[in-house]
Amino acid sequence: MWVKVLVINGPNMNLLGEREPEVYGKMTLAELERLIRAEAESMGIEVSFVQSNSESVLLSAIHEARKNFDGILINPGSFTHYSVAIADALRAVKVPTVEVHISNIFAREGFRAKSVTGRAARGVITGFGPESYILGLQALARITRE
Amino acid sequence: MWVKVLVINGPNMNLLGEREPEVYGKMTLAELERLIRAEAESMGIEVSFVQSNSESVLLSAIHEARKNFDGILINPGSFTHYSVAIADALRAVKVPTVEVHISNIFAREGFRAKSVTGRAARGVITGFGPESYILGLQALARITRE
Amino acid sequence: MWVKVLVINGPNMNLLGEREPEVYGKMTLAELERLIRAEAESMGIEVSFVQSNSESVLLSAIHEARKNFDGILINPGSFTHYSVAIADALRAVKVPTVEVHISNIFAREGFRAKSVTGRAARGVITGFGPESYILGLQALARITRE
Amino acid sequence: MWVKVLVINGPNMNLLGEREPEVYGKMTLAELERLIRAEAESMGIEVSFVQSNSESVLLSAIHEARKNFDGILINPGSFTHYSVAIADALRAVKVPTVEVHISNIFAREGFRAKSVTGRAARGVITGFGPESYILGLQALARITRE
Amino acid sequence: MWVKVLVINGPNMNLLGEREPEVYGKMTLAELERLIRAEAESMGIEVSFVQSNSESVLLSAIHEARKNFDGILINPGSFTHYSVAIADALRAVKVPTVEVHISNIFAREGFRAKSVTGRAARGVITGFGPESYILGLQALARITRE
Amino acid sequence: MWVKVLVINGPNMNLLGEREPEVYGKMTLAELERLIRAEAESMGIEVSFVQSNSESVLLSAIHEARKNFDGILINPGSFTHYSVAIADALRAVKVPTVEVHISNIFAREGFRAKSVTGRAARGVITGFGPESYILGLQALARITRE
Amino acid sequence: MWVKVLVINGPNMNLLGEREPEVYGKMTLAELERLIRAEAESMGIEVSFVQSNSESVLLSAIHEARKNFDGILINPGSFTHYSVAIADALRAVKVPTVEVHISNIFAREGFRAKSVTGRAARGVITGFGPESYILGLQALARITRE
Amino acid sequence: MWVKVLVINGPNMNLLGEREPEVYGKMTLAELERLIRAEAESMGIEVSFVQSNSESVLLSAIHEARKNFDGILINPGSFTHYSVAIADALRAVKVPTVEVHISNIFAREGFRAKSVTGRAARGVITGFGPESYILGLQALARITRE
Amino acid sequence: MWVKVLVINGPNMNLLGEREPEVYGKMTLAELERLIRAEAESMGIEVSFVQSNSESVLLSAIHEARKNFDGILINPGSFTHYSVAIADALRAVKVPTVEVHISNIFAREGFRAKSVTGRAARGVITGFGPESYILGLQALARITRE
Amino acid sequence: MWVKVLVINGPNMNLLGEREPEVYGKMTLAELERLIRAEAESMGIEVSFVQSNSESVLLSAIHEARKNFDGILINPGSFTHYSVAIADALRAVKVPTVEVHISNIFAREGFRAKSVTGRAARGVITGFGPESYILGLQALARITRE
Amino acid sequence: MWVKVLVINGPNMNLLGEREPEVYGKMTLAELERLIRAEAESMGIEVSFVQSNSESVLLSAIHEARKNFDGILINPGSFTHYSVAIADALRAVKVPTVEVHISNIFAREGFRAKSVTGRAARGVITGFGPESYILGLQALARITRE
Amino acid sequence: MWVKVLVINGPNMNLLGEREPEVYGKMTLAELERLIRAEAESMGIEVSFVQSNSESVLLSAIHEARKNFDGILINPGSFTHYSVAIADALRAVKVPTVEVHISNIFAREGFRAKSVTGRAARGVITGFGPESYILGLQALARITRE
Repeated sequence: MWVKVLVINGPNMNLLGEREPEVYGKMTLAELERLIRAEAESMGIEVSFVQSNSESVLLSAIHEARKNFDGILINPGSFTHYSVAIADALRAVKVPTVEVHISNIFAREGFRAKSVTGRAARGVITGFGPESYILGLQALARITRE
Repeated sequence: MWVKVLVINGPNMNLLGEREPEVYGKMTLAELERLIRAEAESMGIEVSFVQSNSESVLLSAIHEARKNFDGILINPGSFTHYSVAIADALRAVKVPTVEVHISNIFAREGFRAKSVTGRAARGVITGFGPESYILGLQALARITRE
Repeated sequence: MWVKVLVINGPNMNLLGEREPEVYGKMTLAELERLIRAEAESMGIEVSFVQSNSESVLLSAIHEARKNFDGILINPGSFTHYSVAIADALRAVKVPTVEVHISNIFAREGFRAKSVTGRAARGVITGFGPESYILGLQALARITRE
Repeated sequence: MWVKVLVINGPNMNLLGEREPEVYGKMTLAELERLIRAEAESMGIEVSFVQSNSESVLLSAIHEARKNFDGILINPGSFTHYSVAIADALRAVKVPTVEVHISNIFAREGFRAKSVTGRAARGVITGFGPESYILGLQALARITRE
Repeated sequence: MWVKVLVINGPNMNLLGEREPEVYGKMTLAELERLIRAEAESMGIEVSFVQSNSESVLLSAIHEARKNFDGILINPGSFTHYSVAIADALRAVKVPTVEVHISNIFAREGFRAKSVTGRAARGVITGFGPESYILGLQALARITRE
Repeated sequence: MWVKVLVINGPNMNLLGEREPEVYGKMTLAELERLIRAEAESMGIEVSFVQSNSESVLLSAIHEARKNFDGILINPGSFTHYSVAIADALRAVKVPTVEVHISNIFAREGFRAKSVTGRAARGVITGFGPESYILGLQALARITRE
Repeated sequence: MWVKVLVINGPNMNLLGEREPEVYGKMTLAELERLIRAEAESMGIEVSFVQSNSESVLLSAIHEARKNFDGILINPGSFTHYSVAIADALRAVKVPTVEVHISNIFAREGFRAKSVTGRAARGVITGFGPESYILGLQALARITRE
Repeated sequence: MWVKVLVINGPNMNLLGEREPEVYGKMTLAELERLIRAEAESMGIEVSFVQSNSESVLLSAIHEARKNFDGILINPGSFTHYSVAIADALRAVKVPTVEVHISNIFAREGFRAKSVTGRAARGVITGFGPESYILGLQALARITRE
Repeated sequence: MWVKVLVINGPNMNLLGEREPEVYGKMTLAELERLIRAEAESMGIEVSFVQSNSESVLLSAIHEARKNFDGILINPGSFTHYSVAIADALRAVKVPTVEVHISNIFAREGFRAKSVTGRAARGVITGFGPESYILGLQALARITRE
Repeated sequence: MWVKVLVINGPNMNLLGEREPEVYGKMTLAELERLIRAEAESMGIEVSFVQSNSESVLLSAIHEARKNFDGILINPGSFTHYSVAIADALRAVKVPTVEVHISNIFAREGFRAKSVTGRAARGVITGFGPESYILGLQALARITRE
Repeated sequence: MWVKVLVINGPNMNLLGEREPEVYGKMTLAELERLIRAEAESMGIEVSFVQSNSESVLLSAIHEARKNFDGILINPGSFTHYSVAIADALRAVKVPTVEVHISNIFAREGFRAKSVTGRAARGVITGFGPESYILGLQALARITRE
Repeated sequence: MWVKVLVINGPNMNLLGEREPEVYGKMTLAELERLIRAEAESMGIEVSFVQSNSESVLLSAIHEARKNFDGILINPGSFTHYSVAIADALRAVKVPTVEVHISNIFAREGFRAKSVTGRAARGVITGFGPESYILGLQALARITRE
């Protein structure tokens, strides 16, 4: 049977490809989602996508995930560093969650090197560009089959 | 005449009863609201309820409250610790406000022991489970009758 | 059967009514205790009072409370912010304890916004003037009947 | 040709005039916008207005601005101090941005003296009441004509 | 008419002359009090003395002083650095208070360079050995005659 | 009647144009002062200029300004971050003061993002290159006509 | 000739055996003192005991010890972390002092991992349950015979 | 052609399976290395293994890797949090490096939530148990084929 | 023989009487100096006065004092909080120095509660208005006669 | 049967007796080990000694101890303050461990007053010179016989 | 051709030899300058000297140096720790600069271990007494000949 | 007679010339050592070299130096910032030590601007590239001839 994973992208991710390409690369969100879907299929994973600049939409998506999904793959974007609400939502639903980042947040300065939301995830993958998402899917594939 | 109180619950409170029940208890939000309504009636208080995961919906609710309500009873949930906007909204409207928490936030660690929003409230009641809301109502009953 | 509650007031509370009345109000300690007794009776609670400027007298009162009382209602006054000994005493005896404050300590600056003793209480009620004590009694009434 | 500027006001700014008038003055948001429009016209600037209590609406407005506007004039309100998402959005779009504040944030305490979002702006104007907006328009007039 | 001043010495001051004489000098407390009395008389000041190792005795002395004394001269000893209760007591009574120290606390390290209690005094005199007390008396002589 | 404004530039500003031009631009101080004078005239403002590397000369200029000037426009240069004396002087004289900076100090790191002197100004304009001075003049024009 | 040691126990130690037994063990203070006396006798040490919840009683005990005792064995309990007065008293008397703790304070968090009073002791023994006292006696036996 | 990867495990990793199995799991290092080798082969990666408790042996291994390996997969164990030398070595050699952790270090407290060495890696994968290594191999497979 | 004391006043003290009179009082510097001279004469002290807004003039005055004066009475004004150079100068010359402040600096916030220069003085007198200078003279009278 | 204890000394301990003798005393390591062996024999303890300046040798010794020893007596020397690896090794093996120090580390400044490794020990004995080791042995004697 | 170096000494350096000789040695500034001149000549360096207690004189000297000197040798004295203006001046002129200190500032406490000005120098030499200047000259000799 | 100096290079220095050449330059360690030897000979200094990535090898080298060398010239590399053991070793042996750095560590950020080991050296020379070593030798030449 297929594993269902909700892929959540946080604020400003809709500008991917256009936004500071020297940091975040040139792939657009649409291209990234196509890439993820292709890779997911080869792993027997059915993916759905949510991207929102709204913390509350992200919270609702996480809440809904507990009914319809086997795993969450999330890049909380700027919310990584301050959204206690998202961290609390991930703790509230018990869907296995993997957090991913395009750039290596450990290599950034000050509060940007920390992840408030990552404390509530099963694990975090950071620094591999779009590949972080594929690695995250693979992690979820195994976790959800445990 | 009846006192009108707006009861506001912040993010993730819609999962009450299901969410980390060892911390937040087993009562659902619907049950909690029924309990509050019943107790409120016995105090001559008419309650309305807002629950939202959206900071802006909470802000609007607070703004509106200055027209139609005599008091606000708020559990800002995760926003307690970082929403300067909610604190500023409470300062902007002058409706007497009581902040409540189900668990004792003083007994938590680091930033979770502090309340950004509570600085702007008349008072704070923390640690009594669903009872915190009833105590908050009683506090408002007296304040609004001053 | 009547519930027995020990009401403990910490240092400088004997000057209530006279001390910075713009912060702490004009009610004297004697008036406050009369108010508490009256409200307590209506709840079926028998109250005893201790006020002391001495940390050791407060510690002994807390120690004794484990034999003769069903609950403790405490306003540790200035000790709130530094008496590890009182916090440890509250942890040592297992009598349910509610901490109360006349002013809203969350709205104060620096160490005055924190409660060392409140970490060891069941819950804390802060900012409602003398009403904080009545709300604390109501909290204890429910807790001790659990 | 006319320069197009998007004027963005953050949370609680809809209460302007009514909210802590001793800090923020008595002019309402509508009056402020009329004043801005009048002054803008005299500078050959066409202004559009967005006010929202919602971080995501502000993010979308900033995102859209990169298509239709030559400059952004923003008062992020309470978000000034913690919205990494807005700072990241300003960095993502490359529209020249001027941040303004009614009160002098340097004269405030602790985190309120800092601007997370101002780090991503071209410049900041703070402390001149409604005049801050007019000065900001003048700054944009020159920047956009560079 | 004679001015009445209560001279309060805090913990370990009973060991004066014997205790770390390289820091605190060789004069005993009895000698110091004789010296103070002699100087006080020449200024028309009637002095009474309290020395206690007990915070609560010091609190009571401060409380009592509001009835019978025109000024307080206090060396809170070790309590200088942490007794919020003494600071609160000095604020509660409105007797003019001068804090004195034998050694120069500004020249010490860390928390020992700060005075929690001195925040609540009219002024502080620190570093002049026993002379600090005489200077303090002179300060009180003027303050109480204002 | 003409408004009189004293324009004060702090240490190292005499090297403007030559000093780190990638940060501070290529305009020299003389050119900047000519630009300011021209713009000032069009606003009915008579400007005088002081530039000094000496804190005491700047203090004297500020002191004198209270007799002969309607406003101060100051770029305290490096003193922005540590001269308590200049901040105190601005508080001592009551001449309306606008602080300006060529670069956006909010975008700098650590203590360089803060302004000790700006706390004592009416408002601060930062990040617009030489234009910051013109905006500052405009601000003063309105303030001094209030 | 017998060595005389004063064994001092601080606040809440009278509840030993009953107080958080998972941390402090099940032995009561009376049993602990019997154990200490028995072991002391076998080492030729005559022990006296003081337990008090009062900082001032502990200070007096330390002061008196300089006349009648060859060593002090002290567990300052909660005062370990904040009583500058006890630390100062230990420095004032020159009786060799060993500080002991039942639990390993290094393994605790924040201020509980530090000892204000231990700075003034000859040495500290922490983490061996009641055995800490016996080890402390052995340490004193050697120190006092030096 | 096969990609060559050096797999480096830091101090105490030789006790894997035996050491705090509730945190680090029950798989031994030998089993982990067998698992890695098997998975590596299926990806066309030839792996070599180094495990050492010695910082200098790890440094030498990293130094040597620049000659013979296409990638480094490293779990620096306890050195993650303080070995500036390992971070500097990773920066010195330019072999693409992926850092992995068995447990989620973001979910740990204080300095344990930070990675000194991860700042120098291409990316970090943390929290997936032995699976972190496999995900790290996959990341390296792509990076080295770029 | 007469004792010679140099009275040094730091920056902005020339505005005394005019500057924030609610904090610093209404007495001008000239009046203060007359008062000091009168009191000094009655103590057999010959006073000279220096007031400067220039750190270097103050340094030279301190340097010169080692040749011609028996004591220094200094109010370093704003320099109190950051002039390491003045502190170092006081340490370099060995003239006994008393630091005075008109307001109680212990009662101020943050860095304003500390004295960099006071660490290098014999003692500090703070909070007694112009009287602080008289008390300082008396302190010097005794110190210089030791 | 004899109890087996491994006595571990960390870096620079080989210079004992020669190294800062005013802090660490004049006894050499060889003399210290002889003293320990003699005392150990009288307690029925068989001791082995390791001294190394190498963190990895110490780690291996700790690892090996889990096979052949009943207890560890360790003075980690300078590693006390930063070797997370040694702390982790002590947690990994479950041999009861006592940490000892010649000088009283509580009386030292800053990070030298803390013990990273002591958090992982059963208990810590600090400040008794060579005697700390004997007291540590006695502690182990009892612990290993529990 | 001779290299021209400006040797700058900051505040209190005029008292060298007299000032805390146990820290700064017994050589006077005149002797030091003679020593420097002699050594400089042997290196083909022509030296000029400036010593001032005035930050602005030092700033002017640095500014002038860009016209007439090949290098700057500076001991900023107390200004090392807080003169952002001097650091900015060194950055503004591009004359190669070497900072020297007589004592080892790394061995001092707190802010005295840091150098604000040294951040803007090519290099820093600290701790070698008057020899630090000679070493600094040698460093400049090579840098200016590069 | 020739002076004997041990030149010690810490971790990663073996990669000199290859490692981040934009920071550390292009000279290899072998070339650097040849340069040092040549310069040393001209000063009558006999140099020996140790380079190790191992803290324990460096400790042993320092220990041995006390028998055979008149001075130590050390670049502790990454250990500069955290090796308390090396600092303690330098304090333990009394061989005069000069610490050198290729880059100017004062110009780096955070902990990299501090030197744990430099506190224990006679002096530090930082920022002159390979020249730092030659300057260090010259410093040692004078110190060892004192």
